[in-house]
Amino acid sequence: MQSADAKLSRSSLLLALRRYSTAVHNMEQTVLLPSLLRDVPYDDGSDCEATDNSMDLYEYYLLLKAIKNTVESGLVPHDDTKAKSHAALHKGLEPLLEAEPEALFHFHLRGLFTVMATLAKKSQNLTEKYLDIVGISPE
Amino acid sequence: MQSADAKLSRSSLLLALRRYSTAVHNMEQTVLLPSLLRDVPYDDGSDCEATDNSMDLYEYYLLLKAIKNTVESGLVPHDDTKAKSHAALHKGLEPLLEAEPEALFHFHLRGLFTVMATLAKKSQNLTEKYLDIVGISPE
Repeated sequence: MQSADAKLSRSSLLLALRRYSTAVHNMEQTVLLPSLLRDVPYDDGSDCEATDNSMDLYEYYLLLKAIKNTVESGLVPHDDTKAKSHAALHKGLEPLLEAEPEALFHFHLRGLFTVMATLAKKSQNLTEKYLDIVGISPE
Repeated sequence: MQSADAKLSRSSLLLALRRYSTAVHNMEQTVLLPSLLRDVPYDDGSDCEATDNSMDLYEYYLLLKAIKNTVESGLVPHDDTKAKSHAALHKGLEPLLEAEPEALFHFHLRGLFTVMATLAKKSQNLTEKYLDIVGISPE
C-alpha cells in the first residue's frame, strides 16, 4: 500500500516542480564561485550526441537559476526569447492544437512533469561537475 | 502598478489551474440532471469546423470532471488512454525532445496554461448550454 502511494506521489507535477527547485537550491549552495564554470564546455554526461549547444557551464548555471525563478513564481513568461524553438515545436502540432484540448492537457501535463525531472538531473550534474573542478570528489 | 500586477497574476499557471477547477465546480453545481445532456451533440460554439468529435455533451461533461480530478490531485496519469493522440503529438517533436529541455519547459508551461484556459471556457459553454436546455436563459 505504501509503495503504491509512493509511486503515486512520484508522479505529482507539484512534487516534480519542488524537486527541481531543491536541486537548483543545492546547486546554488554548492557553487560558491560560479565564475569557475566559465568556458567549461557544457556536457551533461549523457550519450546524446546532439549537443549543438554553444553554452558554457556558467551560462547553463544562469539558465537553470532563471528557470527556478519561473517555477517558483508560477508565472508563464511572455513568448519572446524562445520564439525559434517554439516555432519548431509547434510545427507538426498545429492540426491538433485546437481539435483536442483534453489530449493536449495530458500531453503538456506529462511533458512538464518529464522535463522538470530532466532539468533537475542537469542541475545535479552541474553541481557534481563544479565539485570536480574545485577538486572535491563527491562520495 | 496594480494593473501590471494583475497582468502578471493572470499569467500564473496555478491560477489557471484554479480557474479551471472553479469553472468545473460551477458546472457541477448547475448541472443537476447530467442525463439531460445525453445525445446532445457536442458543439463548443466556436467556428471550428474540425469537430470530428463523436462525443455527446454528457460524455464531455464526464471528461471535464475527470480532468478536474487530475488537476486537483496534481497527479500525472499513466500514458495509456490517449496513446493515439500522444503519438500524433509526439511526431515531429522527437528531434527536439531531448536536445533542448529548457525550450521544452517553456513550451509545456505555456501549453498547459493555454489549454487550461480553453478547457475552463468549455466548461462555461457546457454550463450555459445546460441552462438553455432546461429553459433558464442566463442573463
